[in-house]
Amino acid sequence: MAANGEDFSNASMENLMGHVEKRSIFTIVFIVAMQKEAQPLIERLRLVKEVNSPFPKEVAWILFKGMYKDLNINIVCPGKDSALGVDSVCTVPASLVTYASIQALQPDLIINAGTAGGFKAKGARICDVYIVSSSAFHDRRIPVPVLDLYGVGMRKAFPTPNLIKELNLKVGRLSTGDSMDMSPHDKESITANDATVKDMEGAAVAYVADIFKVPTILIKGVTDIVDGNRPTSEEFLENLAAVTAQLDESITKVIDFISGKCLSDL
Amino acid sequence: MAANGEDFSNASMENLMGHVEKRSIFTIVFIVAMQKEAQPLIERLRLVKEVNSPFPKEVAWILFKGMYKDLNINIVCPGKDSALGVDSVCTVPASLVTYASIQALQPDLIINAGTAGGFKAKGARICDVYIVSSSAFHDRRIPVPVLDLYGVGMRKAFPTPNLIKELNLKVGRLSTGDSMDMSPHDKESITANDATVKDMEGAAVAYVADIFKVPTILIKGVTDIVDGNRPTSEEFLENLAAVTAQLDESITKVIDFISGKCLSDL
Repeated sequence: MAANGEDFSNASMENLMGHVEKRSIFTIVFIVAMQKEAQPLIERLRLVKEVNSPFPKEVAWILFKGMYKDLNINIVCPGKDSALGVDSVCTVPASLVTYASIQALQPDLIINAGTAGGFKAKGARICDVYIVSSSAFHDRRIPVPVLDLYGVGMRKAFPTPNLIKELNLKVGRLSTGDSMDMSPHDKESITANDATVKDMEGAAVAYVADIFKVPTILIKGVTDIVDGNRPTSEEFLENLAAVTAQLDESITKVIDFISGKCLSDL
Repeated sequence: MAANGEDFSNASMENLMGHVEKRSIFTIVFIVAMQKEAQPLIERLRLVKEVNSPFPKEVAWILFKGMYKDLNINIVCPGKDSALGVDSVCTVPASLVTYASIQALQPDLIINAGTAGGFKAKGARICDVYIVSSSAFHDRRIPVPVLDLYGVGMRKAFPTPNLIKELNLKVGRLSTGDSMDMSPHDKESITANDATVKDMEGAAVAYVADIFKVPTILIKGVTDIVDGNRPTSEEFLENLAAVTAQLDESITKVIDFISGKCLSDL
């Protein structure tokens, strides 16, 4: 409570909150696990790789940035593993870049965009683009009271009813795990999470953003059908380019929608 | 290459490297997932909770610090989950606190200490304390060439032959995953990793420390036998206090050994 509590009335508080809510969104940070997933968007928005990286010199994290309309757009990728030269996918690098990006760039909004597996039993098809309603983990099984809930880590995404309606986007729950395949144990947890899409980073990005109360949207393009009859890795590689193009188109529409709006308009 | 490359001869470089290697270890950061695991050590070394935390105000991460002999000792715990009030275990919080601790405290040495499951088939028994020779993940299955190796993320720990000999410590490989139990898929990967102990953070701490080339030791006390016939969570809770006491004793011996030494003496 403020020292002069009487002066700081409920009306003033509402004004303050209204002011914050009504401020237009300016800085957006996209967290994208693979640069290949981000490339069409980087080109379309004419973003430039930041030479004076705000990140420590030891990391391979890459920041692409630029102005698009009235928005300060940043795309952060965890970059290549220094020893193996492959993209640093999975939850640990995603959480690190989310943390460091929040510290360095203080975004108004985080968007985790990328590819995902989809469940046809829940209506997903290849090339579908989903807005995530909630995220959770499916590979953190801790059979101890309360720690079990912590492991699942279910979090609602920032609500965007107007965006979903205007762009006619599909909506579904996301389940995240560090494996590309799906073991029977994963399947059980994914079912419990009621997930339509499955990825390898989303819930970790949402976890970190939630600590700092940064509103977060997750947009996932379906590269493979998890409950289909083809191996995920095969379908993923086959559809990556097409889905990335589809994702790029949807994200551009999302950015166009966000431009000039405040969080409460989404 | 330096502007005056001629002056900066190979001999100077060797002197410089020798100087770095021969410098006594001063700052040690312990990464400990649960404060309960760290409590005996905090008390024994009379460490004090840092009021002016070097971490962002939004995080629950806790730093205990103090001088012990000639060493600047820091114990960092990820603290309680703000929504659920349980310890923030698993790889994501462990990687975040490791990253932030390296940035804020610039340690000469990181020690990840904590409890683990042990495999009796590899000689582990309850209350054993292991020095880890290498760490890897067992729940990041990515069946794509090279990404499969990235997923496993096998890393050698900093070699400590003198420490191991002097203190007569058991040595074994560590496998890390975000679940407390072990699924058949996990078991297969743990066997492939040739692990004697299994935890929920170690490989993530090693991953982050490796990016910044900070030498890292992992010390694990066995709370439960994974290939035994009792549920892990039951054995874990039953043995936590006894193993923590054992771990505290071993870690104190390790710190006493490190005091006054440089990295190459370990």
